[in-house]
Amino acid sequence: MKIEPFYRTALYYETDKMAVVHHSNYIRWLEEARIDFLNQVGLPYDEMEKNGIMIPVLSVSCQYKYAVKFNETVCIKSKMEDFSGLKFKISYHITDKETGDLRVTAESSHFFVDSNFKPIRIKNVNPHIYDVFNGLVGVDLYTDFKK
Amino acid sequence: MKIEPFYRTALYYETDKMAVVHHSNYIRWLEEARIDFLNQVGLPYDEMEKNGIMIPVLSVSCQYKYAVKFNETVCIKSKMEDFSGLKFKISYHITDKETGDLRVTAESSHFFVDSNFKPIRIKNVNPHIYDVFNGLVGVDLYTDFKK
Amino acid sequence: MKIEPFYRTALYYETDKMAVVHHSNYIRWLEEARIDFLNQVGLPYDEMEKNGIMIPVLSVSCQYKYAVKFNETVCIKSKMEDFSGLKFKISYHITDKETGDLRVTAESSHFFVDSNFKPIRIKNVNPHIYDVFNGLVGVDLYTDFKK
Amino acid sequence: MKIEPFYRTALYYETDKMAVVHHSNYIRWLEEARIDFLNQVGLPYDEMEKNGIMIPVLSVSCQYKYAVKFNETVCIKSKMEDFSGLKFKISYHITDKETGDLRVTAESSHFFVDSNFKPIRIKNVNPHIYDVFNGLVGVDLYTDFKK
Repeated sequence: MKIEPFYRTALYYETDKMAVVHHSNYIRWLEEARIDFLNQVGLPYDEMEKNGIMIPVLSVSCQYKYAVKFNETVCIKSKMEDFSGLKFKISYHITDKETGDLRVTAESSHFFVDSNFKPIRIKNVNPHIYDVFNGLVGVDLYTDFKK
Repeated sequence: MKIEPFYRTALYYETDKMAVVHHSNYIRWLEEARIDFLNQVGLPYDEMEKNGIMIPVLSVSCQYKYAVKFNETVCIKSKMEDFSGLKFKISYHITDKETGDLRVTAESSHFFVDSNFKPIRIKNVNPHIYDVFNGLVGVDLYTDFKK
Repeated sequence: MKIEPFYRTALYYETDKMAVVHHSNYIRWLEEARIDFLNQVGLPYDEMEKNGIMIPVLSVSCQYKYAVKFNETVCIKSKMEDFSGLKFKISYHITDKETGDLRVTAESSHFFVDSNFKPIRIKNVNPHIYDVFNGLVGVDLYTDFKK
Repeated sequence: MKIEPFYRTALYYETDKMAVVHHSNYIRWLEEARIDFLNQVGLPYDEMEKNGIMIPVLSVSCQYKYAVKFNETVCIKSKMEDFSGLKFKISYHITDKETGDLRVTAESSHFFVDSNFKPIRIKNVNPHIYDVFNGLVGVDLYTDFKK
């Protein structure tokens, strides 16, 4: 399977008085990239939620290398780093679309819950999701993309 | 009844690259002021929602007179302008806390819905809310406050 | 000149506990649509700012007809309603991309300022921007688009 | 020196369709708590910026223990964990104001830059800030507070 990176252009209202994107917004971009990643591997998140499966965030970490300015576009590549059946961890590599320079690296950890926020073992609830997640661990899905 | 104005200090992340509060954030401040207003008149919004009553926004308008900067504090006074039993309209007067200078004027219109987003006649569902709203129309609750 | 509508998909973090897009976020979408509109008519906003011209918001009004949910895509069409050389007004028509149903109508007014926030007469500072704006007043640039 | 914890009530627009505060907003709360912390130790951040000193974020990490809901109030305690003269690290302990239950733990790292984003050695630029930061390392400023 090959997927496309997620491209995102910095919006005006995402900047702050330092004239760069406020650091909290990258956390939101990670969510956008993660949902796009799930869409591309065949697991649309809105359908997961309609089926009563949610993936709240357990933790997030973000290393800011170089600030992004209004109207600059970044390229976000996601990778499934770990998956236990209960939890998973995704890493993110954010570069400038034009120059390829590194902007941000990040990781987020999640767990599966039902609509009552009760943790679930995804294999029992939805074996298909389990199989897809299992097949993604450690795989770079962008190897044929230049940027 | 006398209530206190709602004071709000501009946060760093609310500024944009013009070095002033982004105009969309005032719309959020209106919501904060509105909820504080409802709290003070004895109708906490979280309880209203727990009782299955929500007040979505029908329309909002906002006139920006003078930009607010990081760490400046504004004073927001709310007034019930209209109430029909189905809908209501609140106006907002936002001034600088220190100087009293006008910053923003605004209005928002709302209607009552149940938890399925079905419009409701509040008198039938909750006569107490009806009475409180009715008593607020056109009343300036801040007359004894200097700012 | 013909331009494309601006398409925008509702993001997860833009929803609130009513499970629809929070009303303040539409104000941000208007900004995105406006900047896209300016890009398409040949006036990229980042270049305008680099040339010391900014267009702060004087007022905004927004009528919410029907809530947008996570992952739904809207189509935003912008139209220059008024232009005086000092100020201008844009209207926005937001429909559901799939059904064409009306979601939101809105208007925003702006004025031109230099980098010190001093109002400017755009004809004196940049006659090209003046001419482009003048030619846009009342024109529907989407007539050949179906949606 | 003794300082007060930073109290913050979850706003309606900070919730998402899971009906809890969206995880990105805690990153913003950390900024609010950090600025309040600097204010209380005598280093108002708006004055630092007016004096040409900014403290961009190098990294942030956040562990979400238990979701916060609309109108719940949290108590945030900040602690200077490390300070090198070039960089510093602050940890944050977020608990529920009523129950004292842990909600979130977090850390953020920062460096000092001038208004051109050039890293600075704070001792050379502002010895007072250096001294204050040095005196804060590892100190719990809330020991006399119960919550």
